[in-house]
Formats: sequence, C-alpha cells, structure tokens
Amino acid sequence: MRVLGIDPGLRNMGWGVIDAEGSRLRHVANGIVHSEGTDLSMRLLSLHTQLTAVLREYAPDTAAVEQTFVNKDAVATLKLGQARGIALLVPAQFGLDVGEYAPNAVKKTVVGVGHADKGQIAHMVKMQMPGVKLAGPDAADALAVAMCHAFYVRAPGMKVRA
Amino acid sequence: MRVLGIDPGLRNMGWGVIDAEGSRLRHVANGIVHSEGTDLSMRLLSLHTQLTAVLREYAPDTAAVEQTFVNKDAVATLKLGQARGIALLVPAQFGLDVGEYAPNAVKKTVVGVGHADKGQIAHMVKMQMPGVKLAGPDAADALAVAMCHAFYVRAPGMKVRA
Repeated sequence: MRVLGIDPGLRNMGWGVIDAEGSRLRHVANGIVHSEGTDLSMRLLSLHTQLTAVLREYAPDTAAVEQTFVNKDAVATLKLGQARGIALLVPAQFGLDVGEYAPNAVKKTVVGVGHADKGQIAHMVKMQMPGVKLAGPDAADALAVAMCHAFYVRAPGMKVRA
Repeated sequence: MRVLGIDPGLRNMGWGVIDAEGSRLRHVANGIVHSEGTDLSMRLLSLHTQLTAVLREYAPDTAAVEQTFVNKDAVATLKLGQARGIALLVPAQFGLDVGEYAPNAVKKTVVGVGHADKGQIAHMVKMQMPGVKLAGPDAADALAVAMCHAFYVRAPGMKVRA
C-alpha cells in the first residue's frame, strides 16, 4: 500500500510517500512544494499544479493531510485553510480517500508522545526509514503523517488518539 | 466584460455572473453550489466540480471572491478558508485574474454603506438589475461581489474602500 502524507501550508507544503507492507515501511520520496508571488489565487494554482504532479508521479493508494493547528491568529488560520483546501482536493481528484490527523495524533503515533518537537519527528522518521534524505522539516512532518495513516489504515479498529 | 462573483462557503457557495458594458450592468445567471456529506475532501471536490461547470457554462472574463469575514471561531475560519481555497483556485485554472474584496468594500460599493445587512444587498442587486431572480442570499452576495469587481475594474485608479 502506497501512502501519501501532506503537511499543508501556503508558502511551503511538505509531502512524503511511503510504501507500507505489513508493519514494514519503505521510504519512496519526499519534498516540499513552494508557492511564490503575492496573488493568492495564483499561489493556490501553483500548489495545485505541483501537488497534482506528485500524485501523477507516485500514484499513491491513499492519502492523509495533517489537521492544521488552529491558533489564535485568524488571518493565518484563513491562509492555512486555503492551502489545506488544495491539499484535500488534489487526492480526492485522483479518487483517493483522504485521512485527517491532528498534529498530536501524528506525534503520539510516530514519536510516542503528543508534544514532540520537529527535531524529534525528523529523528523518528529517520529511525523508521534508515537512509532517508529529508527535504526539510515540512517534508519530515508529511512523512510522519503518512506513517500515522499507514498505521491506522492497517489497524482500522483502533481509535485515533488525539 | 463578463464578471463572475463568488461568495465562498463550505456548505453553500453563492455565485453570480453579470455583463458590464460601460456603466450598464446586465444579469446573466446566479446560483448556489451545495456540498453534502461529512468527508471534507469529497465536499471540496464537489464544490470544485460544480464551480468548474459554472465557469465552463458562462465563460467569464474576470472573477472576484469575497474576503471571508474572519471571526473569533477558528474552526469556522479554517472551514471557510478551505472552501475559499477552491473558490480562488477554479477561476485561476481558467486563466482568470481573481480579485478579492472585503465584505465592507462590497457593501460600500453596492449599497453605499459598509454595514448593510443581507436584505439591503439583495434589494440593491434587484434595483440595479431589474427582474433578477435570486437563488438565495449567498447568490445575492455573489452578484454584489461581481458588481463591486466590475466597478473597480472599470475605475482601476480608484482605491478600494474597505
């Protein structure tokens, strides 16, 4: 089963693809999609185009998107929401089910605790998939989302711990 | 010049198309796109598909999307942001520039004051385009966004009053 994980953001959107067979995980690819410019609709189009290319190239069987942290900055939340709309749309356009996981659920699944920092996440991603080269923290987070999704798809009866 | 206005929302997304020639406005069509179901990615895909059909049918030359009111409910803001991402993406996929206007700017342009309620907006839309049948308040808002965009595209030197 090939799993795509996405860590959404308007400027930097991390993505990671893994193959999950039984409990064995294999890294396939990871990267960060950037949007440039000031025009919001063009930035969203740029994210859509690049993310579509990732789906075409790696043909995942299922996908998951991190549930964006809702902070107290409403303008930032709105921006993130717009990017997240694209992250959820593109896999659906390929006919995939799209899972959603809160950051704490991802951390608990991958690191074992819900308050892990980005360095710990990258560390655990590297531990689980030795030799992986990470495009950056957002790509590490996206691989962690993919790992979390692979875990819960394999164990569908288990409740997601948020 | 054919103008598409969009009032974004996750459940109900209003749209309106007008033709603007000089200072004369002509109503072309308006409607509300609904998304059903609980799966967020499927709802966004449904909005994308329906909005794409509107663009295909009416072939606008330019588009504008209302700048969603950012309230204190972060969860609602995130939802609205996701729908807004689709509203901004689709016209860009058709190669259109996409304008953005704050609700107050739309109201000041169409009604003359920034604090107009939905009833006043619908009234002014009907006054400007006699005989128009409105699909609902969200469609009236979308037509108001299109009217606002037509005004500022015709008068590019004029600053948008927010």
